[in-house]
Amino acid sequence: MHPFTDDPESQVRRHGELELLRRIREWLGTANPAPPRGMGDDTAVLPVPTDGDSLLLTNDSLLWNQHFDEFTEPEAAGAKLLKRNLSDIAGMGGVPHHAILALAASPNLSLAWLERFFRGLAACAREYDCEVNGGDLAEAPGTDSFLGTLSLLGSATRPLLRKGGDLDSWIWVTGSLGGSRAGHHLSFRPRLEEGAWLAAREDVVAMMDLTDGLAKDLPALVADGLQAQVDLAFLPLSEAARATAQDTGETEVFHAFTDGEDYELLFLTRPGTDYRAFEQAWRDRFALPVTPIGNLVLAPPMEDSVPKIIGLDGRPLFAGAGYQHFGSSG
Amino acid sequence: MHPFTDDPESQVRRHGELELLRRIREWLGTANPAPPRGMGDDTAVLPVPTDGDSLLLTNDSLLWNQHFDEFTEPEAAGAKLLKRNLSDIAGMGGVPHHAILALAASPNLSLAWLERFFRGLAACAREYDCEVNGGDLAEAPGTDSFLGTLSLLGSATRPLLRKGGDLDSWIWVTGSLGGSRAGHHLSFRPRLEEGAWLAAREDVVAMMDLTDGLAKDLPALVADGLQAQVDLAFLPLSEAARATAQDTGETEVFHAFTDGEDYELLFLTRPGTDYRAFEQAWRDRFALPVTPIGNLVLAPPMEDSVPKIIGLDGRPLFAGAGYQHFGSSG
Repeated sequence: MHPFTDDPESQVRRHGELELLRRIREWLGTANPAPPRGMGDDTAVLPVPTDGDSLLLTNDSLLWNQHFDEFTEPEAAGAKLLKRNLSDIAGMGGVPHHAILALAASPNLSLAWLERFFRGLAACAREYDCEVNGGDLAEAPGTDSFLGTLSLLGSATRPLLRKGGDLDSWIWVTGSLGGSRAGHHLSFRPRLEEGAWLAAREDVVAMMDLTDGLAKDLPALVADGLQAQVDLAFLPLSEAARATAQDTGETEVFHAFTDGEDYELLFLTRPGTDYRAFEQAWRDRFALPVTPIGNLVLAPPMEDSVPKIIGLDGRPLFAGAGYQHFGSSG
Repeated sequence: MHPFTDDPESQVRRHGELELLRRIREWLGTANPAPPRGMGDDTAVLPVPTDGDSLLLTNDSLLWNQHFDEFTEPEAAGAKLLKRNLSDIAGMGGVPHHAILALAASPNLSLAWLERFFRGLAACAREYDCEVNGGDLAEAPGTDSFLGTLSLLGSATRPLLRKGGDLDSWIWVTGSLGGSRAGHHLSFRPRLEEGAWLAAREDVVAMMDLTDGLAKDLPALVADGLQAQVDLAFLPLSEAARATAQDTGETEVFHAFTDGEDYELLFLTRPGTDYRAFEQAWRDRFALPVTPIGNLVLAPPMEDSVPKIIGLDGRPLFAGAGYQHFGSSG
């Protein structure tokens, strides 16, 4: 469904802000609690999570023609905006609680599209036990413009950060990688249960969610002086990566490293972890695959620019690839 | 300074995302704490505020050619994005703690402009004792597009909501109103100290910050069955409202009611409050004026659509005016 319409009767500009807010409240239904916790005041008033936990605060955006297009079901677009943020919380091993949403859209936005967007967002919030507590509505100039930014507040007893792996740590990835554009970027399930399970295990020492592709995201887990040595034979390739590779003529591995939007978990276990026992414990709990794809090794000393990811042969893998906003022409 | 440039060497696209993030971290300086509390992970890890308090979560946006233009100093634009949110927290009587920022900009954004924007934001954060803990960077399509959305996490011991006033409550406003476009919309100080002082007083029963104009904001404080009766003779008019009225030919009162972006506090005191004693207590503490502008009175029964604001003569005042996003042509 196309988000924008030329029919004045079907555009959001047909209604004032107050009427729009009334409808949004209706569309959100039980996902939006009563004020002051929900919509009503400018600021949501929220309970403090369990004592001893840390707060987690993250945001992510959803942009027309970048994260969704006219072939995207509006419900799937609404759910995707929340799931992108849920995946961030999953990557810390946290639990999501409260979302606020900022929408900036041109006045030719279709009201029917917006209703389905919010109903999809609300259904997703209910599914993951998260509230939508408020937000902000702004009119963007011009036509055909839509940007949603969602901020998500969560908590974690033991938040897992990116940095934390030592020499000989195992590198693990959940699910399979590559070709997300074929559908996974909309249908993915944020790995919240998996992330919480991992954060509760002392042998897991660092974690993040994979959004920009292994080539760009894995270096963030690698401490100075170390390199990630990946055994490509173990890389879990998605069916979509294979199909995409047939279309593009690139290798499946290339797509697994650079496509982005995998929304899987990438994590490190402490050196000396028995990887077979770890895998078995995982399999007892989850149907989703988990795969050890390599180790952290010592970087060669005295080199100017040490590649962060190498293959078994020691050669750099996809240095500088993966999705970068604002290109990298510099 | 113009935020966008045709010179490729001066555009943010000249640099990749990672280089931009490195620079943003530098520009933010001490306003951005070390990770995991600050930039570094996708999600900021934050301490839980004092036990017994509520969390406050709000967001507000800053849009090119709507909230700032080429005549706005970039530092003032950065500060304004934060101050809009600080004003929301002030309107609850809360204390700000943590900000995360989502930027969506076209690649022809000027790097020099962006540096000054961030330096202004950082200076403002330091001034109001608030951290900038992370965010998200997205590339918007086309040219000349800039939208910043900031989410602010705060806390309050006794958050003041919009609803809470009974019959005969006094209506108060801080500072003076109208003509904000002449400069106040950039130079305003969020009323954080004043808001916290008011929230600590039991005789203050409802509050909000004035952003869309008294005509639109005051009705939000008026419970069903009541009306706000405003004595126009007491309305604190700004110098800018007088100057603007001379230009437009409208009345000063019109501008005070409808211009918006006042960022003053609008609040109600409990019926029976001694307004002279209240004013004296305020004056002992603040140089900023505070003014009782009216009362909540009983709405006439059995009317179809009761006006929320009336004058001393009982006639409606500026019904439906004030800034509405997405117009109100419906």
